[in-house]
Amino acid sequence: MTAPPHEAHPAGPGRALPDTQQGMRRRNLARVMHAVSAGGPLSRAAVASRIGLTRAAVSSLVDELIRSGLLQELGPERPGRVGRPGSALAVSGHGPAGIGAEIGVDHLAVCAVDLRGEVRARIVRQGANRGRPAAPVLAELTTLVRRVVARAERAGLWPAGLAVAVPGLVARDARTVVRAPNLEWRDTDLGALLPAEFPLTVDNEANFGALAELWLGADTPPDFLHVSAEIGIGAAVVVDGGLLRGTRGFAGELGHVPVRPEGPACPCGGRGCLEQYAGEEAVLRAAGLEPGEDRVGLLADRAAEGDEDVRRALRDAGTALGIALTGAVNLLDPEAVVLGGALSGLAPWLLPALEEELDRRTAGPACPVSVSRLGPEGPLLGAAHSVVRAVLDDPAAVGERV
Amino acid sequence: MTAPPHEAHPAGPGRALPDTQQGMRRRNLARVMHAVSAGGPLSRAAVASRIGLTRAAVSSLVDELIRSGLLQELGPERPGRVGRPGSALAVSGHGPAGIGAEIGVDHLAVCAVDLRGEVRARIVRQGANRGRPAAPVLAELTTLVRRVVARAERAGLWPAGLAVAVPGLVARDARTVVRAPNLEWRDTDLGALLPAEFPLTVDNEANFGALAELWLGADTPPDFLHVSAEIGIGAAVVVDGGLLRGTRGFAGELGHVPVRPEGPACPCGGRGCLEQYAGEEAVLRAAGLEPGEDRVGLLADRAAEGDEDVRRALRDAGTALGIALTGAVNLLDPEAVVLGGALSGLAPWLLPALEEELDRRTAGPACPVSVSRLGPEGPLLGAAHSVVRAVLDDPAAVGERV
Repeated sequence: MTAPPHEAHPAGPGRALPDTQQGMRRRNLARVMHAVSAGGPLSRAAVASRIGLTRAAVSSLVDELIRSGLLQELGPERPGRVGRPGSALAVSGHGPAGIGAEIGVDHLAVCAVDLRGEVRARIVRQGANRGRPAAPVLAELTTLVRRVVARAERAGLWPAGLAVAVPGLVARDARTVVRAPNLEWRDTDLGALLPAEFPLTVDNEANFGALAELWLGADTPPDFLHVSAEIGIGAAVVVDGGLLRGTRGFAGELGHVPVRPEGPACPCGGRGCLEQYAGEEAVLRAAGLEPGEDRVGLLADRAAEGDEDVRRALRDAGTALGIALTGAVNLLDPEAVVLGGALSGLAPWLLPALEEELDRRTAGPACPVSVSRLGPEGPLLGAAHSVVRAVLDDPAAVGERV
Repeated sequence: MTAPPHEAHPAGPGRALPDTQQGMRRRNLARVMHAVSAGGPLSRAAVASRIGLTRAAVSSLVDELIRSGLLQELGPERPGRVGRPGSALAVSGHGPAGIGAEIGVDHLAVCAVDLRGEVRARIVRQGANRGRPAAPVLAELTTLVRRVVARAERAGLWPAGLAVAVPGLVARDARTVVRAPNLEWRDTDLGALLPAEFPLTVDNEANFGALAELWLGADTPPDFLHVSAEIGIGAAVVVDGGLLRGTRGFAGELGHVPVRPEGPACPCGGRGCLEQYAGEEAVLRAAGLEPGEDRVGLLADRAAEGDEDVRRALRDAGTALGIALTGAVNLLDPEAVVLGGALSGLAPWLLPALEEELDRRTAGPACPVSVSRLGPEGPLLGAAHSVVRAVLDDPAAVGERV
């Protein structure tokens, strides 16, 4: 009894099924895929030693993964090592691909990522989507998805699934956009409007951005708070390497944390929400600028040029972010806060005030704040990689479909 | 790929070891214990059908659990059923017991709970601990622990572990009190000052209170926010039936969420923290009362008598709680908020203002707020039950020690 004795118990959620030989084999297939994905090329013996199974067991698992087209043999390892040379294994570059898509307020984007994590096809189309009904937007997105899939197929890949990032709240069915104020969509089932031939996952852009940071970021810890923005401000809470989703799927609504309880009214029904101080429109207004198309670019350009009104507006936004993050850090005790999405481009002017506020309000060493190097690409990459991770996490499910 | 594809992957934290026959058996032992604990008395056949294993597999597991003294046979089930009568199984009332202890600002308490969840011994000693050094307090607690253990042993039980609830922040080593401002303790290793013969777990009282609510509360959902108070205000975040602990073990510091960012200075270094509006001392001050021993009792008595100053102070505290909880609900999207600990006794006067504030600030249907029926007993019971749950979660670990 050395582990803390009061964690979720084995009969609890997510562990409801009894262990069976079949389930064990499925999980061990996943361990082999993850080992090769993280450290490949690797011999069967190296895989066995990394995951703690016998070489015979690993060989049988590897054979199945090669048959399914998920692993490939690169031929004998270079000589000079002790023992019989083994054939090095690598994750296949011709197997399943993850198709990621992003519905932005001002753009649509689609990409295909292979099991090795390489982007093999990518299309971005600029154009305002705010106020457009969902049907024509998704028809346009479907055209882009089909073009990306065709390119991926020409490269020897096949689509294992489609994941779509949206700037709004998504229900736990991973299909329905409950509320996307900046698109003006409400209770929209994207599943009915997208190609039915791929397994579909829809999620909030902040969630996919956080997952991209977790999987692709430099030294991202397994517990962090990811703050991002398009027009609204969203956050995603990552705990032990997984997303904290909330009961309805709405966790991470940092934009509606009260910063000044008697502050300006917010469309959400509250007063003085963070979005009223640090949302793009609030910052543009405070800086005396008109909202246009490339809002973040405009703010960054003016701030870089030394525009004092813009700099002050960004400083005030940073202070408001620091107040809201103080509450979040006190509640969640994350290892780090990462600024991603559009916020990453404004970090030079937001960060000093944000950090000052957070430091003076949080007891003990303050939580470090860093800036995502993925920037606005995060949600699109996170979406595509989520499909790839699903294949790595349960390769048997793909084998069944092949 | 019907499940959301972007959860923690099988190679991630907590699943690092490969599946083995031995691990599988350990987990299946736990499933048998939980099935009998939740639904017993049960026949072997009923256990097999509940957990989805064969009757032969269950019989072997049950034999081991009977040998370890964790299950007992009650003799043949009553006749009238179809087939050969099986012997009903029940969780043993003479096996291991969980010893729970609580270090309060004004009291010490210790209890012993058997595997069936019954309190078999309990001692409470009133007396101020604020400002007393840790050594004499823990010496006194040790005496009480030994007396409770002696009583439990006379009833045929043996102590499986000791869990201690403290009003402060506890490091993830589950031994060290990093900061307990209301005891004036800092970086105190309780492990060095408590009996070494039992496995020890130290945790924040809010965490144990939340676990008690999860395990013993009426219809408590697996995702909720538990708010409690002794002198400070603490919270615990329960996600999927497990505690969210945070990187350092400090998650749930609701008391230091900024409510009014320019409000009164707080000893934590911040300004306008929730504790400055809804902590016991702030409420007493606002009500014009002197801090004494039974502070909550005093407030509750005066409020019940209709004292308008006290009622107003409690209404204002409820409003501040509502503002801080708005942020927490937006970040965590819990299924419910539960008021426990000392706050539960003040709920009639806090709750209306709290709910009004939360409702008007949160979009959509507000998060329901309920009052714990465990009240101030929660942390002590949660501590003792955490030891009992650890036995149910890994009965093999106890078997090895017997």
